[in-house]
Order: sequence, then C-alpha cells, then structure tokens
Amino acid sequence: MEQNQQFFHAHHSPMGALASFTVGEFGEHGGMGLELGAPFAGNVFVGYQDGEGVVNAFPFYKGANDQSERYVQKDDTSSLTERLFDDIQRDYAWASDTFAAPGISFKVLSPFFEVPDPSLAEHKKLKQASCPAVYVELSFNNASDKDWTGFFALQGDELRWNKLLDGDANGMVGVTCRDSIGIATQTPGARAFSHFSVQSALSKMGNNDCFMLGPTAGVMIDVKAGETVTLRLALGFYLGGNVTFNRAMQYYYTQHFTGLTDVLAYGLEHFDSYAAIAEASDKQLRASKLNSHQQFLLAHATRSYYGSTQWLFDGTEPVWVVNEGEYLMMNTLDLTVDMLFFEMQQNPWTVKNTLEQFLKQYSFYDEIFDPAKPEQNYKGGISFTHDMGVSNNWSPKGHSSYEVAGLDRVCFSHMTYEQLTNWVLCCGVYISKTNDQDFAIEQRGTLIDCLQSLLNRDHPDAELRDGIMSFESARTEQGGEITTYDSLDHSLGQARGNIYLAGKSWAAYLAIAKVLQDLGESEQAEIALAAAKRCADKLSNSFDTQLGYIPAVLDGHSTSAIIPAIEAIVYPYEMGLLEAVSEQGPYGEYIKVLKTHLKYILNDEHCLYPDGAWKLSSTADNSWVSKIYLNQYVARKVLNIDLANSVEADAAHQRWQTLGASKHACCDQFSSGKPIGSLYYPRCVTNILWLNE
Amino acid sequence: MEQNQQFFHAHHSPMGALASFTVGEFGEHGGMGLELGAPFAGNVFVGYQDGEGVVNAFPFYKGANDQSERYVQKDDTSSLTERLFDDIQRDYAWASDTFAAPGISFKVLSPFFEVPDPSLAEHKKLKQASCPAVYVELSFNNASDKDWTGFFALQGDELRWNKLLDGDANGMVGVTCRDSIGIATQTPGARAFSHFSVQSALSKMGNNDCFMLGPTAGVMIDVKAGETVTLRLALGFYLGGNVTFNRAMQYYYTQHFTGLTDVLAYGLEHFDSYAAIAEASDKQLRASKLNSHQQFLLAHATRSYYGSTQWLFDGTEPVWVVNEGEYLMMNTLDLTVDMLFFEMQQNPWTVKNTLEQFLKQYSFYDEIFDPAKPEQNYKGGISFTHDMGVSNNWSPKGHSSYEVAGLDRVCFSHMTYEQLTNWVLCCGVYISKTNDQDFAIEQRGTLIDCLQSLLNRDHPDAELRDGIMSFESARTEQGGEITTYDSLDHSLGQARGNIYLAGKSWAAYLAIAKVLQDLGESEQAEIALAAAKRCADKLSNSFDTQLGYIPAVLDGHSTSAIIPAIEAIVYPYEMGLLEAVSEQGPYGEYIKVLKTHLKYILNDEHCLYPDGAWKLSSTADNSWVSKIYLNQYVARKVLNIDLANSVEADAAHQRWQTLGASKHACCDQFSSGKPIGSLYYPRCVTNILWLNE
Repeated sequence: MEQNQQFFHAHHSPMGALASFTVGEFGEHGGMGLELGAPFAGNVFVGYQDGEGVVNAFPFYKGANDQSERYVQKDDTSSLTERLFDDIQRDYAWASDTFAAPGISFKVLSPFFEVPDPSLAEHKKLKQASCPAVYVELSFNNASDKDWTGFFALQGDELRWNKLLDGDANGMVGVTCRDSIGIATQTPGARAFSHFSVQSALSKMGNNDCFMLGPTAGVMIDVKAGETVTLRLALGFYLGGNVTFNRAMQYYYTQHFTGLTDVLAYGLEHFDSYAAIAEASDKQLRASKLNSHQQFLLAHATRSYYGSTQWLFDGTEPVWVVNEGEYLMMNTLDLTVDMLFFEMQQNPWTVKNTLEQFLKQYSFYDEIFDPAKPEQNYKGGISFTHDMGVSNNWSPKGHSSYEVAGLDRVCFSHMTYEQLTNWVLCCGVYISKTNDQDFAIEQRGTLIDCLQSLLNRDHPDAELRDGIMSFESARTEQGGEITTYDSLDHSLGQARGNIYLAGKSWAAYLAIAKVLQDLGESEQAEIALAAAKRCADKLSNSFDTQLGYIPAVLDGHSTSAIIPAIEAIVYPYEMGLLEAVSEQGPYGEYIKVLKTHLKYILNDEHCLYPDGAWKLSSTADNSWVSKIYLNQYVARKVLNIDLANSVEADAAHQRWQTLGASKHACCDQFSSGKPIGSLYYPRCVTNILWLNE
Repeated sequence: MEQNQQFFHAHHSPMGALASFTVGEFGEHGGMGLELGAPFAGNVFVGYQDGEGVVNAFPFYKGANDQSERYVQKDDTSSLTERLFDDIQRDYAWASDTFAAPGISFKVLSPFFEVPDPSLAEHKKLKQASCPAVYVELSFNNASDKDWTGFFALQGDELRWNKLLDGDANGMVGVTCRDSIGIATQTPGARAFSHFSVQSALSKMGNNDCFMLGPTAGVMIDVKAGETVTLRLALGFYLGGNVTFNRAMQYYYTQHFTGLTDVLAYGLEHFDSYAAIAEASDKQLRASKLNSHQQFLLAHATRSYYGSTQWLFDGTEPVWVVNEGEYLMMNTLDLTVDMLFFEMQQNPWTVKNTLEQFLKQYSFYDEIFDPAKPEQNYKGGISFTHDMGVSNNWSPKGHSSYEVAGLDRVCFSHMTYEQLTNWVLCCGVYISKTNDQDFAIEQRGTLIDCLQSLLNRDHPDAELRDGIMSFESARTEQGGEITTYDSLDHSLGQARGNIYLAGKSWAAYLAIAKVLQDLGESEQAEIALAAAKRCADKLSNSFDTQLGYIPAVLDGHSTSAIIPAIEAIVYPYEMGLLEAVSEQGPYGEYIKVLKTHLKYILNDEHCLYPDGAWKLSSTADNSWVSKIYLNQYVARKVLNIDLANSVEADAAHQRWQTLGASKHACCDQFSSGKPIGSLYYPRCVTNILWLNE
C-alpha cells in the first residue's frame, strides 16, 4: 500500500458471528468486538521488547505516539521505554492483512468461503464455516545479538481476563474474557499473561503472569538472539444462549461449538486449512484484472460485509441476518438487494432465507393514496418493511425498526415502494441464477400480488397508469415515501416520480414477467411486460433535450442529474435478460437514452468530483460508494461506456476509505470524500460484480 | 435535606442482584446498571410537559441546565422548550428517596429486609427477597387549567428498546431492553414509548409511540387540568444463564423468576407489600436516636451495600457475594469483616456462606520467613486470600485476583496475616451471635490451625514470641505484607508490627479461645488466651509516654498516631466477651492504654480535621469512612469516650458524601473530604452498629 495510506481500520471477522477484530488505524481504539456498530473501544498491542529493554510496538492503540495519552492504569508503575515501529509496510489482500516492520510481521487472516446451505451440508462443513474465529500469524526475526520478548495483547478498560486453565485447554495457552472473547496458541514456549499493561507484564511487576485486575491480556514468547519465531494465534468469539429479543434465537455456531475453548481449539487445529483458504482468495484477487485500487476496494468491502453478518438458529431453521453497519438494523432490504450479487456468488441460500423471512414476518398489504387527494385511500397491495429490527431486537411482525408515519419524504419515512421492488428483484435474480424451481413455484402467488401492488401504486385506475410510482402508502399517514437514498436531497431521496426508483420498477416488472412466464403464467407475464414497456417509455420520453439528461424527479421541476438512473438495468442483465438491456431490444430506446444520459453527466460539471470520484447527484454533495460501484459496473459492463473506466476514480474512491474513513472501516456514505454516515458498513460488496468485467 | 446538599447519586437496588438504579446527582449520568462499578452512563428523565408545551424535568441527566450539552440524537428534530424544576426538595430515608418539585413527587423505593436462609426458607419468602426490582411512585398534581403529560424515561446511547407486547404483558404497559432491564406499570392510562428523546416522543415525531431506533424509552401518562395522577412503576433487572466465569453460577433469582416480564409482573403485583416494608424501615430509622447526619450516613451506606450484593446459585447451593464497589472484586475478606455486623443483623447465613466459600476455595497453607533473613522459610499455616475474583471471574482456587508477589508493603501485595484474623473474627462473631453449634464443631480443626498459623507468624520459635506479627508469608516472595489500608502510608498500610493489625491478633486469639473453650478444647483455648495476653501486654507496653500514644508501627521508628489502634476491641465486645474489654478485666491495662491513646490523639493536632471529621492516621491525609464509623462506635460504646460524640464530625462526614463524593454514591476513601478511591462502595455499613448505642 502507498505509505501515506497504510493506516486505516479494517474488520477481520468470522462469517456470521457479528464479530470483528478491528485493527489498522494509527493511534485509535480497536480490538475484538461483539455485536458492535463501531470498532471496539480498546487497544491492540503487538510488538517486542528488544535487548535494550525498549518496548517496540505497532501504533494500534489510542494515543500511540503521544506519551501524554498513553494508557496507564493509575496503579501501573511500570516505566519501560516505548518506541513505535517506523517504516511499517501493509499488504492488504482479500483475506489477509499483513503489517511488516523491522524484525516483525503481523498477519491477520480472515478466511471467507461458501457458507454451506444448512439443509444440505454435512456437519463438518457447517462447523468449518461457522467457526467464530480469526487467525493471526506473528513472526519475529531477531537478527540482533540480544534476546527479545514478543507479544500480542488486547486491552479494554472494562475487560478482566482469565487464563486458560491446564485442565481444559487442550494444550493451548491463552486468555479469555467472560467466555466471549479469547486468544489462544499452541506455539511452544508461548506464555499467557494479563496485567495492567504490556509494560507492567514485561517488567514482571508482581511476579504474576496473570494478574486478574489488569485490563490487558495476551500472549508472550521469547525470541532468542538470532532466532526467528512464528507465533500462531486463534482469536475466538462466542456468545451462547439466546441473543435476539422478541423472537429468541442463538448463533448458528452454538450448534457446532460447546463454547469459546472449543472454538479456540478447533481454530488452532485447523489453522493450516483456514490459512490455505485465505491464501487462495488472496491469489484469486491478485490474479484478477482489477487494478490495485479496485482490489483494495473489493477486499475492504468484503471484510466489512462479513463483520456485519449474523448466522442465527431459531430452534428449527437457520436465519441469515446482515446487520446495517453502525446502525445495526437487521436485514435492511434496500441493502439486501445490493449485497445480492455477492451473496449469490458465495451462498445463494442466504438470499432465499432472507426473502422467506421477509415474506413470513415482514410483508404486509397496505392501502395507498394520491398525494393530491390524500384523504381518500385505495387498495394498495403487498409490500415489505425496510428492515427486521435493530441491535438484535426483532421488530414486531409487519413492522420495521426504521419506518415511522407522518413524515413527508424525509429520513425515517416509509420505503414501501422501493422495498417492494427490492424483494421482487432479489427473488428474480435468485430464481434466475439458481433455477430453484420449488422456490419459484412457491412464490407464484406472491409475485402476482407484487405485480398488482406495483400496478396499483402507479395508479389504481389502469387507464391512468404511466409506468411509474404516483401513489403513496397509507402507512405514511398522508406523508410521502422515500428511497434508500434517505438522506439525500429529493433528487434521489423521494420515491414518487423518481427515475432511479422508476428504473427499479421497470426491472421488477421484467423480473416478475420472467419468473411467471417460466411458470406458465403467460397472462400475468404479459401484464408485467406491458407495464415494463410503459415504464421504459415514460422514462425515455422524459429525456430532456435541453438539459441533456432525464431529470431526477419527473415532477416538472427537478433539474438534478443522477447517475443511478442507469442502476436498475443490472437486474435484467444479471438475470440473463440480455435482450432487455440491448439497444436493439424491446427497450432499446430506453437503453440508448440511459447511455446518452450517463455520458452527458459523467463529468465534473455534473456528476464527477474534480479528482474523478463519482457524485451520484449533481445537486447533492453526498454519495454512497456501494451505489457508485454498482453503477460503474452497469456503465462499463452493460452500457459499454468507456468514460466509466477510470483509474483516477478508483484511486479517489480508495482515498475516501484510507484517508477519509480510516477510522470507520468500510464506509458507504461520503460528502466530498469525508464519511458522513453508513460507517462500518456491509453494503459496499456491490463491487464483487467487477470480477465479471 | 439541606438545600445545598440534596443532589448526590444514590444506589437504589434490589438485594443480591448486583444492580442499581442510580439517580440523584445534578446534571450527571445515571440510570439502571447491571454489574457495574459506577453509575450507568445514561440519563434519567422525569417530569411533565405542561399546558404551554414546555417540558419540565428533574436535572437527572448529563448536561442538565446546559443547553449546549443537551442530549440530542443527530436526527432528532424536536425542539420543545425545556425547563428544569427549581425548588427541589429531597427526603432521603432508609428505603425511600423522594424528590419533590412544584406539581410532582418522584419517590424511589428500595425495600430491604432479611434475605432468608435458602436451606430453611419457604419458596414464597425466597421469591420475595430475590425479586430483582426497585419501585417508583410518581405523583403529578396538576393545579393548572391546562392538561399535562407526565413521563418517566431512561436513555442510553447503546440502548434499544422493545415495547411489552400485549400477549405476554399480563396487563402491563412498559418497555424492556435486551430482556435485562425494563420499566412497567399497570396504572390505567399509562403509555409506553421509545424514541430519540422525550421531546421527540412528546412532539409525536413519526406518529409512532415505539420507534425502535430511539435510545430513550419509558412511560407517559396524561394528567388533566385539576387532576392528581399517581403512576406506579416497577424497574426490573434480569440476567439469565451463567453469569460467572471459571466456576459457572447463575443469579439466585433465576430460581424464582422465569425472566424479566415475570419480575415486572410480580413487582407490580406486590408493590404494596414492598412499599410497606420500605416504609417500616424509614420509620425505624427516623425513630432511632441517631441524629440527622447519622441517619443520612446509615441510609446511604445501606443502599450502596445492597447495590454491590450478588446472590448466586451454583447448581446446588446458594452463593453469597458482595462485590467491592468500583473495583468489583468478589467477597474481599477485609470488607467482609467490616460488613459482618450488618449481615449478622440482617441475615447471618450469608456470613456463614462466605466463611465456607473461603474455607473451601480460598484457603491455603503457606510458608513464612523472617524479613531479616528472607532466604530461610519456616512452616506458616492456614490463611485465606484477599478476595475470590473480580468482575464475575472467580480466581483460581487458593488465589485472589488482587494479591501479587514480589512487592514489599505496597498496594497489591499479600494480606495473608490480616485475612487470617478476618476469617477468624467473622467466624467467632458468627458463632457467638447465632450459637450455631454444628458450624462451630465443623470449624474446630480449622480454628486450631488458625491458632497455630497466628502463633507461627509471631515467631516459629515459641520462646521468641512477643504477641504480634513478625514473619511474612512466603507468598510475597521476600516482599512484605500489607493491610486493608493498602493505599495508606506505613502507619496503617504495612502489616508487620502494625498496632491496628496487632489489635486484630488479640481479638482473633480471644475469638479462637472462646469457640474452642465452648467446644471443650481447653488446652488450645489456654494457648490462645496466653497469646492474647502476650499481644495485649506487648501493645500496652508499647505506649510511648513521650508521644502520648502507642506509635502505629512497633519498629522503633514510627511516630504516627492512628485511631484504628482501638478498632479490634469491637470483636470481643460483639461476641459478648465484656470482661475482655473491661478496664477491670484481664486486659484492663490494654483497654486503659487504648482509652488514653484515643483521648490524646482525637484532636486536630493529630487525628481530626479542622471541621471535626476524623482522620485515621496523623501522618496521612487519607481516611476510610467505614473504619471511622466503626471506630466511632468502639470509642463511644465500648470505651465510653465522650470526645467521640460529635455532631460536628457527623455533619462533616455527611458533607464528604453529599458534596465530596456526590457523583459516586457511597464512597469509602477520602482525602480531606475529597473521594480518592473505594467509590460506589459497600463497606460503609459498619455504621449499622450505631443503632446499638
């Protein structure tokens, strides 16, 4: 990595444990966190005491390089000299993150792979995938003529530690905290310790390796003069029992591991195989055609996705949840639709699982109204909630944690229309890519209901439909709906008349038509296709030749230019409906218009920042990178727009993460490269699509 | 309470739940905390919105009276005018704490009573005693001609809330967080809510009573013009499953309550009986001879004691733990011996339970050495560890969390000698006051071992014994032992030759003699009595006529004067050994010397602060109030020293708590009235003894 960009936080997470060993930023809090929306507020100490007694460490603790802020417990009388490593190199690969400094290499492995379908997979595979651990390989190369002591330690003001006891440690050495996080090794010669600080432990204050009042704990190892020593650690997480509320569920890993010690032992026993998996991913990404910035962005996105995943068990069935980063909302549907491509590649059953959860618990049938005559309600139809709850609290059936009534097109209003398209699009892509006929047959009735619901929201009177959303859900109580771009201006934030959302309508109609056609529901499929055509025509006809693009909101006033006008064509494309996205196909005019639209606005007069970074709306300094990545893919792969190929843009987007959001792991929402929301966020894995280019 | 002293934090805690609803300080964090060593870092909102729409509240939140610091979630757009109540009166009784302001009275009940012996008590009594709840009675008196809305709410940045659902709420209305804390009521008309803030809830932002993304939740109720409305709330705590580590245990209340909802329902159902218990305690204290300052100090101490109690169940037996306030060390034995008097009055089985835990898990036999020849070890004998662990982590068998080796008479060294006397003294007082013969018989061998261990630590060679401790435990690894006054100077901090600890030796010998004599072990009893005599003589003979008192440490150098020279005579007195503490008895000379000692030093030249507050050592500005209270009792009740009767001193000690330690609930350790440690502390209940005067 470039030397000025190597310090930033990254998740290092097991799959499905909603857990993260977050480390990498200079002089900031980090550590092993469980169920958090931000880095754990602790410190990570990695380094060695050299022959002069000086404690050399990476700068992964709050106040590094600032002696006045050094963490000292008031009773800690140790006073060893400290020195930060300089010349730190970082190699940030897809599943490994390596920091190298003179005499030391600190490598964190976060292997990811297919989470197997629990209804089909053998126990062994499920155990392997659910193991809630990450792996550290710490190498010391002591070329000096004096002995060193290497260390890896974690600290947190409220943490108190237990040493793994000989009796139940399976030959491991290590420390645990509240049976929920732990560090263990089987490397010969390693010693567990806990103390006020690494310094007080090294200075043998109290002659006691495991002083229980100390908030700092870890593992030490001697590195004799001239020796190279490699210390392998498993960092394990474990939360037993019910962890969710309103509907009680447990982590899936509790089906396979009896507790933290079991996790640590298994992780160490299978260290080699996990390391091999991580290495294969690293090689795959390096061998791809992606440039170095793109490789970084995909690796960074992948880590934060897994850090937000939560694989649960409800007593009978597996339950897949992706938490919404810092907000910790559960299975936010407008994120699901963006993470769809990643999950379809990794483990499609999680998409199906999420769709089924929405249908069973978080679907509803509403009424709608015309905003011009808000007092009269009409039949609406089926839709889905924004999310399923927050912070392990399942929201009541049919309700999200986020949406409230009485708001007119501002944050926290309902997203009824957008979520309807999102569920349909996930369903369509899932069925197309898996050819899961049983599931398709099961969704027949629901998809017909979705079609009717989409049509009603255009207009309850078929004669008056123009292809796009015009009616609002009565759930807003005479307010107005919004989109996933909830904190943007109306160019993308409001739902009604929005061309981003209209594009999703078109794609949703196509998805319904495809699935229903395959099920032999020709009549309904025809209705859907007609609606798609109506929608595409409406959009094409809305091209404003004076402006040079389709204005963002078809209300006669908007003059905003937005990139996501093109976003939705990714869905028919990924469903294999290549005709639909062809300039020569039935929607050729729409596709041509979109090309013209994007070409016209992809410049720094409209939708680029001066450094080449993308700006989703010309009227708002507010961009979501997950959406940028998705639209880049659409522009390049589906629309073949050369302008969208820009190493300059990729480099800028990397700087947003490494310089702008360096404290927040992968961040989605930026204003001129500064993070302004959606921190520590899972959604950015839309860039998995780049591997298809 | 005096108007400038009414704002200070107080625990309001169930018995044995290690839980506290902490509230009362002006503009500081507070709320419902579980297993914390400090007030919960949230906010408490209690008040009403008046007819002008203004939100009137008590100042029990961070930044009260400072608009710039008002807690506002970034999306909270509410902007109701706020006003703090002025003219707030506080009535701080033994089991109720009432804040009154114009139009409102806010009363918190924390009933305490005997925790029945689980081996004897019926289920119903155990359920009553273990119920982990406190109770709030909130009265609104709306004399205006416009309607009000009253509210009680809690807030915490990380808290997300669930509304009690109709199906399982037993007619209750309320909110819960992670099934571990909750607020419920059955008062007709009350409404549960959660939102960004009380303001956003009152302003109906989002038309949604329970907005799940909000960190604030509680209950509201309409108070019509001219009406008086009383809202009764149960505040419940619950932690299910194993809560301790190394040895897994659960809260005792889990034997009697299936979960938080059960606790809330039971608490509301039995509100009247709990209120009656609280009222009886209030009356008892008011009717006592204690002056108002003493009444305050006892009420304050009682609350913080219960806030630190933890009644556990190990699968077979009850396990009683008192946590060490902010430090959260478990059953610190040098606290147990001070809280002994309170527990003996309330529920003696907890003393026996703690003694048995120490014997089974935290006793050991050590070697000892002469500090002049530290390389040679001798047989020591039985003793006990300082504590049993920290923060729910049981320390390994035979080891405390606190004590480390290699330290010479400084904080964190071993307390082997003092803990030996402490266990013996608790054992002696327990047997004397309960006449529990079975237990006495069981301890026969242990007490003989304790006697031998005490003797050996004087000198392994019987001929060379002078009555006081001269040898150090080899556990210190050639360091030196300390006393419970661990952070004081050597006048009280070091163990060897210390006259405070020597007093405890004398008392321990007497306790052993008494129990063994009653068991027919006359020979051993004689040995113990001889040792007691030797100790008393040594101390009497150490009276320094030039100084006017016995110097604190009998090393030939010390000239410190210490009040706790007299402390240990409380034990024979409480055991009913009135002869032993009589000037006409076998230790008459010693008792006379102690009187002379105390009379000489109880002035502001030695051991009083200028305002009359007590200062334990003449050479250290560092005092523990628990010890002050104990020594006051000894001085007044046992030694009949009039000087020790001082309303001025009581008033000063009250100011230490209400002005000095107002943020820290009951604090034990002060320097010139400023809290310097032992915050949020259980030990101060030594003042229960005052009720015997």
